[in-house]
This record gives sequence, structure tokens and C-alpha cells, in this order.
Amino acid sequence: MRINVKECAQILKEQDNILILTHAHPDGDTLGSGFGLCRALLKLGKKARVVCADEIPDKYLCIFKELEMPEFEEDYIVAVDVATENLLGDLCDKYKGKIDLCIDHHRSNSDYAKYLVLDSDAAAACETILEIVKELGVEIDSAIADCLFTGISTDTGCFKFASTTANTYRAAAELVDFGADNGKINRIMFDTKTKTYAAIESLALEGMQFFCDERICVITITQDMYEKTGAKEYETEAISPLTRQIEGVEIGLTIREKANGECKCSIRTFESVDASELAAFFGGGGHKQASACVFNCSVEEAKARLVAKCEEILK
Amino acid sequence: MRINVKECAQILKEQDNILILTHAHPDGDTLGSGFGLCRALLKLGKKARVVCADEIPDKYLCIFKELEMPEFEEDYIVAVDVATENLLGDLCDKYKGKIDLCIDHHRSNSDYAKYLVLDSDAAAACETILEIVKELGVEIDSAIADCLFTGISTDTGCFKFASTTANTYRAAAELVDFGADNGKINRIMFDTKTKTYAAIESLALEGMQFFCDERICVITITQDMYEKTGAKEYETEAISPLTRQIEGVEIGLTIREKANGECKCSIRTFESVDASELAAFFGGGGHKQASACVFNCSVEEAKARLVAKCEEILK
Repeated sequence: MRINVKECAQILKEQDNILILTHAHPDGDTLGSGFGLCRALLKLGKKARVVCADEIPDKYLCIFKELEMPEFEEDYIVAVDVATENLLGDLCDKYKGKIDLCIDHHRSNSDYAKYLVLDSDAAAACETILEIVKELGVEIDSAIADCLFTGISTDTGCFKFASTTANTYRAAAELVDFGADNGKINRIMFDTKTKTYAAIESLALEGMQFFCDERICVITITQDMYEKTGAKEYETEAISPLTRQIEGVEIGLTIREKANGECKCSIRTFESVDASELAAFFGGGGHKQASACVFNCSVEEAKARLVAKCEEILK
Repeated sequence: MRINVKECAQILKEQDNILILTHAHPDGDTLGSGFGLCRALLKLGKKARVVCADEIPDKYLCIFKELEMPEFEEDYIVAVDVATENLLGDLCDKYKGKIDLCIDHHRSNSDYAKYLVLDSDAAAACETILEIVKELGVEIDSAIADCLFTGISTDTGCFKFASTTANTYRAAAELVDFGADNGKINRIMFDTKTKTYAAIESLALEGMQFFCDERICVITITQDMYEKTGAKEYETEAISPLTRQIEGVEIGLTIREKANGECKCSIRTFESVDASELAAFFGGGGHKQASACVFNCSVEEAKARLVAKCEEILK
């Protein structure tokens, strides 16, 4: 059942022993939503705790780690920034069908929870969490503000993506007023590279290839490159956007060889090409301008198949 | 004489045939301020024109080029985002001592104009121009909003730098409400690389060196690299921030060999090191975290002298 922010706050006020679930492979928005809401509920004197199927990546630790969360038997289960239950990862089996409330901003939300607050115009779930926290009557402190600012900033590429609305900038202003350390957060999220990432990024850029009058740009990342640089697989998520930054490129492909021999291809496009259709042709999926698919073949073969299909689309 | 936004608007209302000067080597903030103010004055039925000593870089053209500006004998001269008269470049000789009004946000403003509006807390001069345009009673259209948004976004590194305040985010929200195409502007400013830039960036990252337990990071750009890639000298301005992004680095140095045989070094630091002091030691200057100096020697010799001095500072 769809509810609004006011109804959601009313429901939360009536509950206690609240477990908050984030999605697996957590990003800034699901973590910011989870920890921001948790801190607000704790300030109301409730018991609340955030759980995630996967480890929190290092760069988020200084923002989210300091919260001491009580142990309890959960009475109420909330999922934040989780579009479908299977995105809960290893927590899916345990909580599938049991989620009381979902707060999300993905248009594709599968409406799996008893109650759903969904604002698909929001650039980040944290925008909606901010409204809920205000509605709860909690005084927003700098720790809550840092959580929510992190979610908004990371989900908008530091306020860069076209998804960023006037409301997004207004929420950021409000959070800075509440004490969010925007300069520090943005530096950690957007201006800090590990040495191993910098090394593999350099190799990746060196090997960048162009096809079809330079309208297609391809970066390949092999297991050999991970070994050479010491970079971890999850670090190279940040490479995909680089393929689309080159002037004139309409389709950017990043093909990453995985340890199990599969190849994962991230597709980035502009308005002219539907990335989700391209991915679907190879059994994958995603959004219009960002999608992904997986191949059970060598990097070179995956590249040949992808480029051939892209050339067909561009003609 | 220092005046406030209200007084400034009153003075502008009384003037006509207004010439607006931007600084040389123009950036988004001086251009956004100039063209934003010019459009507002034209809407009031006044004659106004923007001039700049140097050509407007290509990436700004789609935002600023479409304005038709009348020719006239100037009666009133305004400088925007210009901290000192010599920053007018080749226009300095002609207008030195003749500037009626300066609108700026640089703490270091030398107070050279008859009237000065200075808000050193503003992250961009465009924040103040927005207030002035509102005070003028002009209805802000999407063209004006695009100009002012561009200035704010570029001067804050897309809302990333610590200089970004709650007011900055609020100004952005207002401008999006007025029709600024934030997604498009940010894509052009922050997500578009020329092929030649991408090529020289790749070479630069490949040759990155570390010193002093990897607390110093050095990138060198030689004339040879410009020839190999076809990149222009002004394009490599964007490389300097990359030296400071690597985890653990406290001083980032970018040494660029110029066509005349000089070497220009851009220095980037964090709080622990004063970049302006380091630059001053070599006859240069700048801000606490970003400064520059020039050497009349080879890249290798400049690097050796800089690294030696940095090691001394870090010990």
C-alpha cells in the first residue's frame, strides 16, 4: 500500500525494535538512508539497528561506523533504497515477504513491502528520509545530516547528474545548515583514489580503444591488470563512466574479466542509444543510459560481439 | 567604497551604456557573472556588453555565445570576478583606474574600483550577481539562470569544494527553479573530455611518480607529450587536481614544460601544508591549498628542486 511521508512518520512513531535493511553491495544512499533513519529513531528513544548483507566499503566507514546500535528481537522491518527483495543479497531468504515498510526512489520498485513510500522524482532515497525525519519531529544533528548528505551527494555524482532537481539542492542546503560537513564528505567520496585504483585506471586509459568513427569507446580490464596493480575488483566500478566522457562517444563499454572467467560489461550511453535494450540483447538489463550484461567467453570475444552489435545500432 | 547588493542595484538602475569586464583566461564564474548581468541589464532596456581580453574556451560557447550585444560608447564600467586590475590581461592598460564598479568574491580583492560589492563567503561571484539581478527586479529567465548556474557550478568543482555553503546550494536550487539546465551544464563542464585531453591525461597518469614515502606525488608534462597527443597547453589545467586525489598524498606537484622553455609548477596540498608558502619560496604565489610558480630550467631540474624543498617541509 502506497503511503506518504506523513503517514510513514506516524507508523514509525507507533513501532519499536525496528530493523533497517539496506541493499547488498551497499552504496552511499542505502547506507545514508539506513544510518540516518536509525539515528533519528534512536533519538526518539526507540531501539533500531541497520543491517546489510555485505561489508561496508572502507570509504564509508568514517561516516557511518561510529554509531552504537542495540541488539534486540525485531518487531518491525524497514527496507531503505531497496527496489526489489533480491537486492537484499544474502538477507533475502531470511526477510523475503516479511518487510513491513519500504522507503525508496526507484521507479522500478516491485512494491514488495506492506507499506511503500516511493518518490521516484527524488534523486536519492535520502531526500525522502530527510522529510520523514523532520516529520518525526527529531532535531537533526550533524551526524544525521552527514548520513543524509552522503546519500544525496553520492547518488547524484556530487550533484552532477541530470537527476539532480531543485529539491535536491534545497535538501543539501538544509543539511549543511544542520551541520553536514559537505567539504569533507565530498572529498572522501569524489576526490580520493587509492594508489591501486590510480594504477589500474592509468592502465585502463592507456588501453582505451575506439570503433565506428570513434562513436564507440571500449575499456577492457583483465585479471592480469588486477595482478599487476593490486587493485580489487570492486574498485573498478568507478571506471565505467570514463568511457562516456570522451567527446563524440555515444556508447561506452567497460569489459571486466572476472576471476571465475566470466566477463561483465558495463554499458554507458547518451540519449540517442538505449543502454537497457543493448544489454537485454545479451541477456542483461538496467537503465536507459547505464546497463550491464555478462558473457561466458574471453574479453576479446565479448568485445567483438558487443562492438558488432553497437555498430549495427549506430548505423 | 564598499557597498551592498541593494545599493549596487540602485546604482546600476541609474546607469546606461554599461561595459562589463571579465578577467583574462576566462572561467565559468567570470563569464557567467558577465553574461548573466549583461542579460539582466538588457532586459531592463539598457545597453550593455561583455568584453574579455582572451577568447572564450570552446566548452563555454554553447552557454554564452547566443547573446547579441549592442555596440555603444561606454558610460559605466563594471568588472566581475576580477580581484586585481592586472587580471584584466590585455584590457588592463585601457581600463586601469577607470572601473566604476567591481562585483567580486575574492578575499584578496585590491579595492581598485570606485564602488565594490565583495562577498568573500560566496563560493562564486555568480551567487552575488543572482542577488543583484533579483534586486534589479528583473524576471530571471532560463538563459540568465544558465549563466549564473554555470558560474556557481564551475567555481565549486560541481558543488564539491569545501567553499560550497548552504547558500551556494540554495542559489543552485533557485536557478534550477528559474529554468537552468543543470544536467546539461554539468555534463559539458565536468563529464566531457576531448580525445586529445584524454590521451595526454593517460600519458600523465602513466608517468606519475611518488617521493618521500609516497607523501609527494609528481606529474610532469613535456612538450613532447603535447606533440604526441595533439593536446593544447590550456587543456592540461585540469590535470593538477589529479595529483592530490591519491590516498596518502600531502603535496601534489604538476610540472608543465612550456613552449618557451620555462616550466610552470602547480602545487596542490591539504591543510597540513601551506601551498602559497611553498610557491613563494620559488618566487610564485597563490592560495593555501593551490598555488603555482615558474622555473627557468628543465623539467627534471625543477622537479629535483621542488621535491627537495617538499621533503624538507614534510620532515
